Amino acid sequence: MDDTIQLRTIGVVRRDGGDGADGQAVLAVQPELRPALLGIEPGMRLQVMYWMHRLSDEHRRVLQCHPRGDRSRPLRGVFALRSPMRPNMIGSTEVDVKAVRDTEVVVTGLDAFDGSPIVDIKIAPRR
Amino acid sequence: MDDTIQLRTIGVVRRDGGDGADGQAVLAVQPELRPALLGIEPGMRLQVMYWMHRLSDEHRRVLQCHPRGDRSRPLRGVFALRSPMRPNMIGSTEVDVKAVRDTEVVVTGLDAFDGSPIVDIKIAPRR
Repeated sequence: MDDTIQLRTIGVVRRDGGDGADGQAVLAVQPELRPALLGIEPGMRLQVMYWMHRLSDEHRRVLQCHPRGDRSRPLRGVFALRSPMRPNMIGSTEVDVKAVRDTEVVVTGLDAFDGSPIVDIKIAPRR
Repeated sequence: MDDTIQLRTIGVVRRDGGDGADGQAVLAVQPELRPALLGIEPGMRLQVMYWMHRLSDEHRRVLQCHPRGDRSRPLRGVFALRSPMRPNMIGSTEVDVKAVRDTEVVVTGLDAFDGSPIVDIKIAPRR
């Protein structure tokens, strides 16, 4: 088994209104990937995968955490949590599309920080 | 912006019963990551991210497809689809845990092929 996989960043998260899932964020997609946005429209729900870039390589070695950092709760494995600390720090969040402007998709509900590299965008799964 | 991100494979999908989302699959996690499974139990719902390894680099350059390969339907951007063809071929699927045995998690509902490298496991988001 090949043990490493190379991702390319397909864009970056921009948010002027500060971090946190409140408010709008912009998915600024690399210009050469604009054709991949065809069909994205306001009202759609997308799944965005991004790299949690503010963590260090040291955080990739953490295998257990207290849920939500609460030390009164017993340790759990990172694969049983959604903690950002994990071997591959990929965040995955479903968002609502508010607008599409050229290579920018304006969304709400994204918990990524300003500057986070985006690694994939998919339509959200049906439920 | 750093344009590449290195992932490590955290395990591999094993399925004896053939491919497809039907039937059981095993998430065979690398032995040194066993502590990261603490707290995973039957009945839990997990989100599994895996690399769609049977596609070639050529498929990473595809930016538009016909939905489900149906040429009667208009082309759409890959970011508006869940097609496996996309710049970073990361699959993301929610599965049900049936059993945990040492470093193996037995699940149902996984649409990954036998041999797919796993890149992340998280508890599924609450809805």
